[in-house]
Amino acid sequence: MKIPVEFGDCDPARIVWFPNFFRWVDAASRNFFVECGVPSWDEAERIWGVNGTPLVDTQARFFNTATYGETLEIHTTVTEWRNKSFVHEHRVQRGETPIMTCIEIRVFSAPKADGSRGIRAVPIPADIQRLCSQQ
Amino acid sequence: MKIPVEFGDCDPARIVWFPNFFRWVDAASRNFFVECGVPSWDEAERIWGVNGTPLVDTQARFFNTATYGETLEIHTTVTEWRNKSFVHEHRVQRGETPIMTCIEIRVFSAPKADGSRGIRAVPIPADIQRLCSQQ
Amino acid sequence: MKIPVEFGDCDPARIVWFPNFFRWVDAASRNFFVECGVPSWDEAERIWGVNGTPLVDTQARFFNTATYGETLEIHTTVTEWRNKSFVHEHRVQRGETPIMTCIEIRVFSAPKADGSRGIRAVPIPADIQRLCSQQ
Amino acid sequence: MKIPVEFGDCDPARIVWFPNFFRWVDAASRNFFVECGVPSWDEAERIWGVNGTPLVDTQARFFNTATYGETLEIHTTVTEWRNKSFVHEHRVQRGETPIMTCIEIRVFSAPKADGSRGIRAVPIPADIQRLCSQQ
Repeated sequence: MKIPVEFGDCDPARIVWFPNFFRWVDAASRNFFVECGVPSWDEAERIWGVNGTPLVDTQARFFNTATYGETLEIHTTVTEWRNKSFVHEHRVQRGETPIMTCIEIRVFSAPKADGSRGIRAVPIPADIQRLCSQQ
Repeated sequence: MKIPVEFGDCDPARIVWFPNFFRWVDAASRNFFVECGVPSWDEAERIWGVNGTPLVDTQARFFNTATYGETLEIHTTVTEWRNKSFVHEHRVQRGETPIMTCIEIRVFSAPKADGSRGIRAVPIPADIQRLCSQQ
Repeated sequence: MKIPVEFGDCDPARIVWFPNFFRWVDAASRNFFVECGVPSWDEAERIWGVNGTPLVDTQARFFNTATYGETLEIHTTVTEWRNKSFVHEHRVQRGETPIMTCIEIRVFSAPKADGSRGIRAVPIPADIQRLCSQQ
Repeated sequence: MKIPVEFGDCDPARIVWFPNFFRWVDAASRNFFVECGVPSWDEAERIWGVNGTPLVDTQARFFNTATYGETLEIHTTVTEWRNKSFVHEHRVQRGETPIMTCIEIRVFSAPKADGSRGIRAVPIPADIQRLCSQQ
């Protein structure tokens, strides 16, 4: 996944303001599932009852700064499938230069059973795990 | 520091989209230094040569979701002063309910010595550490 | 409504990056309805079938720049109630200094009748117009 | 310019939250100048003394909603060069479907002459106008 860094992504120190990396990493996560063949969360909710992969835990390291006019690449994998959660690794690079890496633990969520606002964690749908393991 | 959660901070699952927590945590970090008596980074650059506290490493855990109409509180401390870096702890709560906690390692930065774009890590100014340790 | 301007709201020119003004103006719009006594859009959907006030047309003028460390105030009114739309005026100021003004035309929206994703414009609920006209 | 709409760009009504359109339109403006051959604002400041094209006035109309998983296209032109300002037109489309259009008046800015924080409007550099008129 390629990310063009824009002027507005940068802060007064003229480097990418770090919350934007999490914006891109979140897009990279959904993009990973799309490339595995998982449809939008609206459709996934109709098929498997799941409506997203909310974040439970994240750890990020920043190695080099980036600025606008540059293009970054994000390499995303699932390094572990657990029972109710999975582990993502995102490596953000500018060419061969590492910019940041991010390890995420995410779960699959479903709407609350009683129809109230909010979500609950559910087991990973076997179909989705199968689709993504073939990658 | 109080954060009113807005409609636009929330995603299609109707909960706060997580990169926004990093936006707020970054504001809470600067707010911590402001409350210690550290001026804007523009002025700090004139006085001590430092222009910010870029993030090197961050680890966050998410305990409960939040949504718009709620008010969150962020409690920010420095738990450790090292030679060139320091450790922040941010606890985000809604009343007594924990929402997320974030441990950050940050450094103090200065403009590059050769005037080129970018920043470099520098030792923590003794004045700033003194101001913040009195809190 | 008071807006503390944060470091991350500013761009490499060290001034507020303009899309952030629209973020704040949108919050000011919802805040206007909250102060009139209109509940969250989730509850409003249960009561009146409306789930938001999407923007149809907006015109903004920028008079002065703002930067982090400053506090802005937004003064929001409804200047006209039409049949299916209404006109908002937002004045953003720093003390007496005008920063930007924004005129918005918004409608009230409801979920699509056939349950598909998306929204449709509906007449303004009389209760909401009454609540807001008493302000 | 192509914009992939991401999950986090959408709000609880599951449509693009409108301030994001201004984020994209701002990127489209800079992209227009890049495609004309204008370098980054850092370099432009060294060459012509200008460091950006801040927005003075903007008017936007929203025709259709968009959501994540879709790809939008932005068509950007300069429709008028004035003495100290110019007029941008941005048309955002999904295939043939119009999503929004935005008319902007922007100026060219330079750092303040006295070195203080902030910017001032300056005449459009003849080189830049020439580069962009050849498009």
